[in-house]
Amino acid sequence: MGSIQGIKAVSAWTLAAALLAPTAAFSQDPNEGAVKARQAYMQLIQFESGPLFGMAKGDVPYDAEKAAASAANLQALTKYDGSGAWTAGTSKADMPGKTRAEAAIWEDMEKFGAAYMDMVAKIDVLAAQAGEGKDALTAAVSDVGRTCGGCHKPFRAKEF
Amino acid sequence: MGSIQGIKAVSAWTLAAALLAPTAAFSQDPNEGAVKARQAYMQLIQFESGPLFGMAKGDVPYDAEKAAASAANLQALTKYDGSGAWTAGTSKADMPGKTRAEAAIWEDMEKFGAAYMDMVAKIDVLAAQAGEGKDALTAAVSDVGRTCGGCHKPFRAKEF
Repeated sequence: MGSIQGIKAVSAWTLAAALLAPTAAFSQDPNEGAVKARQAYMQLIQFESGPLFGMAKGDVPYDAEKAAASAANLQALTKYDGSGAWTAGTSKADMPGKTRAEAAIWEDMEKFGAAYMDMVAKIDVLAAQAGEGKDALTAAVSDVGRTCGGCHKPFRAKEF
Repeated sequence: MGSIQGIKAVSAWTLAAALLAPTAAFSQDPNEGAVKARQAYMQLIQFESGPLFGMAKGDVPYDAEKAAASAANLQALTKYDGSGAWTAGTSKADMPGKTRAEAAIWEDMEKFGAAYMDMVAKIDVLAAQAGEGKDALTAAVSDVGRTCGGCHKPFRAKEF
């Protein structure tokens, strides 16, 4: 158990210093933190999807290597379990002006989860196909694009 | 090639509809997008680290399952390759008020990358130990905490 020995070797002061600085940044309202985490997650999904949609539409020249890298990154994001950020009490009704998440999410978490997993499945296909040519990319991107509405139509308000 | 057949079966209208909606959201300045992606990534790192630092400090009761889940999520985030968000021209000098990323990052990308990989390595240990008791968690969290400064001290400005 190297870790247990490790902790004994760490002086109390060093440990406090290592733990203190980050913790200061973390002290925020848990509900605000959850909303920010969700929005951050979607920001990354958008950031990685952008070039893929651009290539599929023909706005950006197809680049197999870049497409594969972005799709792999999208897939990596789906390995992040965001359920801890979808906590009760963080809907638009609870926190007006801060989130567009409809209370309907918590009334039908099964449907919400299934819609999310549909996106995950289509991103898995995209990750396999993105580097295999523009037609393969376009088909897979189109399938991913269609899953967006699975969550956004029933579960996301138009306005904050 | 199921994907190629798939694309033929998709009408032009359906494809356009599937691609159009997301693309609208993606049309932003690439440098702004890169900065937002970096900040989103750090937001998620913070969100998952918070409970772990809290448990290590004793502010939050140790919970093996929750600790393991947060640490696994942190590890999942490290599988995301953020290099596409650290593009040249996106330092604080380039975009004052928007980012705290010092130009020094692009002057010593090797040091920056090594500091990041140090965090990744310590998070790997944390992911293995977080569920193994409070002492093991605390040692691993402390090691992760010490890596924060590896990037933040030399490469992050105090103010935006």
